[in-house]
Amino acid sequence: MSEHQLNQISWNKLNGLGPEGKSPYFQQDGRTFHALVAQQFSRPMLEDLCSLATCVRKIAKSREGCSFLQSRLFDKRAMLYFAQPSTRTYLSFDSACQTVGLDCMDVRDSSTSSEVKGESPEDTVRTFSSYTDLIIMRHPAGGFAERIAWMLSNTSRPVPVINAGSGKDQHPTQALLDIYTLERSFEKIGGIDEKKVAFVGDLKRGRTVRSLAWLLTQYENVKMYFVAPQELQIGEDVLAQLDAVGVPYEICYEFETIIPEVDAIYMTRIQDEWDIDNESSLIDTSEFYFTKEYLNILKKDAVIMHPLPRRKEIDVAVDSDPRAVYWRQVRNGMWIRSALILSIFGLDGRVRDYYKEEIS
Amino acid sequence: MSEHQLNQISWNKLNGLGPEGKSPYFQQDGRTFHALVAQQFSRPMLEDLCSLATCVRKIAKSREGCSFLQSRLFDKRAMLYFAQPSTRTYLSFDSACQTVGLDCMDVRDSSTSSEVKGESPEDTVRTFSSYTDLIIMRHPAGGFAERIAWMLSNTSRPVPVINAGSGKDQHPTQALLDIYTLERSFEKIGGIDEKKVAFVGDLKRGRTVRSLAWLLTQYENVKMYFVAPQELQIGEDVLAQLDAVGVPYEICYEFETIIPEVDAIYMTRIQDEWDIDNESSLIDTSEFYFTKEYLNILKKDAVIMHPLPRRKEIDVAVDSDPRAVYWRQVRNGMWIRSALILSIFGLDGRVRDYYKEEIS
Amino acid sequence: MSEHQLNQISWNKLNGLGPEGKSPYFQQDGRTFHALVAQQFSRPMLEDLCSLATCVRKIAKSREGCSFLQSRLFDKRAMLYFAQPSTRTYLSFDSACQTVGLDCMDVRDSSTSSEVKGESPEDTVRTFSSYTDLIIMRHPAGGFAERIAWMLSNTSRPVPVINAGSGKDQHPTQALLDIYTLERSFEKIGGIDEKKVAFVGDLKRGRTVRSLAWLLTQYENVKMYFVAPQELQIGEDVLAQLDAVGVPYEICYEFETIIPEVDAIYMTRIQDEWDIDNESSLIDTSEFYFTKEYLNILKKDAVIMHPLPRRKEIDVAVDSDPRAVYWRQVRNGMWIRSALILSIFGLDGRVRDYYKEEIS
Repeated sequence: MSEHQLNQISWNKLNGLGPEGKSPYFQQDGRTFHALVAQQFSRPMLEDLCSLATCVRKIAKSREGCSFLQSRLFDKRAMLYFAQPSTRTYLSFDSACQTVGLDCMDVRDSSTSSEVKGESPEDTVRTFSSYTDLIIMRHPAGGFAERIAWMLSNTSRPVPVINAGSGKDQHPTQALLDIYTLERSFEKIGGIDEKKVAFVGDLKRGRTVRSLAWLLTQYENVKMYFVAPQELQIGEDVLAQLDAVGVPYEICYEFETIIPEVDAIYMTRIQDEWDIDNESSLIDTSEFYFTKEYLNILKKDAVIMHPLPRRKEIDVAVDSDPRAVYWRQVRNGMWIRSALILSIFGLDGRVRDYYKEEIS
Repeated sequence: MSEHQLNQISWNKLNGLGPEGKSPYFQQDGRTFHALVAQQFSRPMLEDLCSLATCVRKIAKSREGCSFLQSRLFDKRAMLYFAQPSTRTYLSFDSACQTVGLDCMDVRDSSTSSEVKGESPEDTVRTFSSYTDLIIMRHPAGGFAERIAWMLSNTSRPVPVINAGSGKDQHPTQALLDIYTLERSFEKIGGIDEKKVAFVGDLKRGRTVRSLAWLLTQYENVKMYFVAPQELQIGEDVLAQLDAVGVPYEICYEFETIIPEVDAIYMTRIQDEWDIDNESSLIDTSEFYFTKEYLNILKKDAVIMHPLPRRKEIDVAVDSDPRAVYWRQVRNGMWIRSALILSIFGLDGRVRDYYKEEIS
Repeated sequence: MSEHQLNQISWNKLNGLGPEGKSPYFQQDGRTFHALVAQQFSRPMLEDLCSLATCVRKIAKSREGCSFLQSRLFDKRAMLYFAQPSTRTYLSFDSACQTVGLDCMDVRDSSTSSEVKGESPEDTVRTFSSYTDLIIMRHPAGGFAERIAWMLSNTSRPVPVINAGSGKDQHPTQALLDIYTLERSFEKIGGIDEKKVAFVGDLKRGRTVRSLAWLLTQYENVKMYFVAPQELQIGEDVLAQLDAVGVPYEICYEFETIIPEVDAIYMTRIQDEWDIDNESSLIDTSEFYFTKEYLNILKKDAVIMHPLPRRKEIDVAVDSDPRAVYWRQVRNGMWIRSALILSIFGLDGRVRDYYKEEIS
């Protein structure tokens, strides 16, 4: 089965129920169980997670708050299984776990010793699940996190799975942190509704763009701009989805002219680690770099985002501008992941209560 | 000195005292200090550890219990030194340490940077011992854990060593978890005494089989079956030991006929990572796989075990049968290792008291 | 810029202020912020750190003390970033962090996945700083820790940096632990003042010797002996610095004759991992080994030190002599690093108060 087909399955599941007549994504009370694909998050869920992330962020400012957050999950344990290395995402989850007081174990190798001994990937993860209460997993194979989530749902000791990136298609917590960053950035100017968002760079292969574009369709009158050289433009399947829900967009081949128009510029990196025949190195993308001069034509309330790591797409001289929010984006990832973990373990309400009583 | 000779030394030591006139294995009050070889555990010690593991397992079910278990060893620290990678054993010990609230540091490389700089393995581990209160160690060299244990016993700051697998010979905590699994499985049918246990697969090289066979000789009227192709049959030295203590056994070259007879089937994996000239790939072991059909002829109270990882020895369709206990075996490893650590640190009594007062 | 030039910059900075008109090393109240070079530590600061390390060491002897130490920094998090592997230093810092209750995250690879994706080293560390409150960093490039410290000082969320070894020049916490070991060793015989210290072995490339020699110039009438074959003798730049501050020294090419004269013998390992054309293997250093026989001519109050790992420089038979303090040196590293971390986070006074009230 191709990765595209596996991804289709995800979309289909969201319209109904899984093979056993129950949803793979949600618990009976509607809370998230497995966090596998960006598309499973509805707008109310996104808003809930964002407001919970803000509670966590503000609670964590005081020693008492840190102590409260760390006191909830001492009887649980998470497994950080990164079969595909990703230092950034690994550390973000690790710090999120520490924020909420969840002990971690980690495997950060591309192959475990058990796999070397001929074990199936399913057995490997099932072993991990025996020791833990949550599996946070990054894997090069598309659809793998979903396969594992189904398997673990059908054991005597079901363990939730958070997909920390699988294959080319899904990296749902990146999409969550992007939404949270947009929400925080536009907090005082009416939120995400009515905003114009430009995606710039390698739109063909960047999974963050695909996921975020989908989530943005849930907001009112958001217009998207896809700004890239022809060879790296956004896939037709994404455009078909946008058409299907009636969301407006523009395809642009020229960067400078759209800068003064938009509220958010989402820069991306050329993903040549996916590039088998190394074609991208032949494409000149320098016209799509955000230079210091562009700060002069950018709206004063606009923001520049980047999922990082960056190469040359954004001049380091841009970093000190208050509209450059990519470093804040990094910390937002820690907060939204903390919120997601708390939510999976049913601590949403307890944290909001503490926030109401002690902080706000 | 050959590994066989080193192993002989262990056996000899158990009959007397070590070079300095004291036992390397036990503390003055009889508690385990170093856990190096399966043979150091007498039946009363096994029963003590198993009952302690059950206390830990039941205490850990509640938040209060977890909090109690984690509050004991905060002033200690363990070193997980895995010079030979073993994801499964590593995680089991790591989760055991977290269960009992013992902070861990880890080195999981086949070579440390100090060794690269020309340091002796003894100096390397002595350095580790400087930072910690317990060393949990896996090493490819047979006898190495014992050599280290002796060295550390003779420093001004003796630190206990748990052998997490060394060379071809010893993996004592695997044998402990196997005994614990058998005890739990036969809890309602009279315990391990009088039972028939079949070992199946690669008996020549599997160290778990050797260790477990020895421990089983301490129970009453246990009969063992060694089921394997000629080339992978159990070593003559093991049979000689069984003969010496008068324990009955059968050598079998055919699997199906013994299935209806036995109470436990201990499947093993072909250990071709030990196989220098790769001879095992030429041996057809498919007659020794446990297939779904065999469930029909297996006793209703019998259990199927496997130290994992498995390859094709057990059909995944067998997993959902309640007699397949190999996944439970994984968690049993965590509980018995927790018990062993608590026992080494002298917390045995404190945990039993808590269990009596709060749980039973 | 050569490493030597970068190092010169450090020295220059200490005589004045950094590029932004403020010191990169100290906080406004005079406490250490970044710990980057040995030269930033004045004698009063060294004495403060040593006495704080002793407080920590004695407090940690009791369960109550451990609990106190671990209760201070639960709301902080450290990053252990070892771009150049160093098991020993890594573990020492890890155990120091655990001693003071500071949660850690670690990256112990020579390259992170982000760097593979084309990220600049500055962006990599800035990401780490987003998740943490302290960066402990080892890096093969000389001057890198200082560059990073400056960068992080100029962000909206400054994070302190401890240099755990960079390039050939600096490893300041090694120098601190050496000073602490000398202070402890000479506690009852008047401290470091007036003592004679011999450095033996590879003095050309060993950065610990360079740093320690500099710190010793701050004590009264310390005399140094540099004992090495011609090819591995101490650099002219170090001697020029000693001359500049009027500190006496001797250059020696013969080991045995100075042994009865000195109070401390600082043995070092031949650093052939720095050795590009492998010249050191041609140099016979066996005349500079400390053999068991030398114990007979060594002063009764003298000490033998070694930064470890050792090769053949010290006979293992020497280890059991009470004057061999290199294993104690290892634990001293843990205590002085704990003290440094506590000091950076402003907990110096709180720890001293506890010590006065509960211990002394």
